[in-house]
Amino acid sequence: MSNVQKDRILEGAEELFFKAGIRSVTMDEIARHLGMSKKTIYQYYRDKDDIVSALVQKKLEEDKEEMCGIGIKSSNVMEEMITMMKHSEDFFSRVNPIVIHDLQKYYPEAWQFFQRFKADVVIDSMQDILDRGIVQGYVREDIDTKAMARMRVWQIELGFDNSVFPHNEFNSWKVQLQFLEHFIYGICTAKGHEILNQYKNILEHN
Amino acid sequence: MSNVQKDRILEGAEELFFKAGIRSVTMDEIARHLGMSKKTIYQYYRDKDDIVSALVQKKLEEDKEEMCGIGIKSSNVMEEMITMMKHSEDFFSRVNPIVIHDLQKYYPEAWQFFQRFKADVVIDSMQDILDRGIVQGYVREDIDTKAMARMRVWQIELGFDNSVFPHNEFNSWKVQLQFLEHFIYGICTAKGHEILNQYKNILEHN
Repeated sequence: MSNVQKDRILEGAEELFFKAGIRSVTMDEIARHLGMSKKTIYQYYRDKDDIVSALVQKKLEEDKEEMCGIGIKSSNVMEEMITMMKHSEDFFSRVNPIVIHDLQKYYPEAWQFFQRFKADVVIDSMQDILDRGIVQGYVREDIDTKAMARMRVWQIELGFDNSVFPHNEFNSWKVQLQFLEHFIYGICTAKGHEILNQYKNILEHN
Repeated sequence: MSNVQKDRILEGAEELFFKAGIRSVTMDEIARHLGMSKKTIYQYYRDKDDIVSALVQKKLEEDKEEMCGIGIKSSNVMEEMITMMKHSEDFFSRVNPIVIHDLQKYYPEAWQFFQRFKADVVIDSMQDILDRGIVQGYVREDIDTKAMARMRVWQIELGFDNSVFPHNEFNSWKVQLQFLEHFIYGICTAKGHEILNQYKNILEHN
């Protein structure tokens, strides 16, 4: 059994899930989309749940590497946060928000990976950005970086909570972008605020 | 039975609760503190739960009137939000945070009043402030005021959540003040940001 094949299945599933959500995509459709027999798929994955869990783990790994790469390439935390914002916007524009609702509701194992990732990786890297930002003069120095990093991460969950932001009333991605942008403005010094404004001005004129 | 007496009992209970939390204060202590017999208290209130519910309702009513008064007296939303921040700080400095933990855990009826108040009153008045702030040029105009008002209100609950901000690791009031301040910075234009900085400078030099 080849790893190439195994990865190809995840890629094919991802393409379908991102367009239509997870719940509504059948194993038959995945097989058809890949030009593969279902039998072949089952050599690599027990069932659809198994594909979903593997895919979420893969995406989270990629996300971690990407965040790390952004940190290395950025000359300061403003650049870092703005690049992260761009990546989120790009992701949101490609992915149907129903994916998150499906995950949350029907794929508890995969959702657990996401939760653990937030707790283990995102909180720490967020606090690290804030701490560095204070030194650089872009983040207000009276911020409790530990509490704010935690708040930011839980905010993501809040935005996906159907009882607070009903999916028929709010666009989940728009809510997430509002939170992200608000979060960055909220931690900024006047100097950081100005850079954010400049970035948004450029966006508007493109 | 006099309303004066009824109010006096609430005031006496409030004094004790604010210092020591709700759970640990007994009816005997309330009676002693008021120089009243327990029998008299029971003429007005069924039990301690009943006192707690009445007190929470009274405080929420007062809070509503106070917020309304601040709105009328303020010349713009920055003044309004800064005054609200001062009131919160003042309240936090007087009240043991254990009050909130006790309410949440042991007084579900009173906690329900608080939840309903948030949903019915606070979300709307917050959205109203944001909408006015946009017109006045202090609040960023690309904010989704409906989503942000909701976020702000749920943030309060998040700050009190022991599983996210364990009480032995975080001071609940400090977390709440961090959220409040961050929220205001986050919605501000550069003009609003400057006013907030001025206010904080004055605080530091007093």
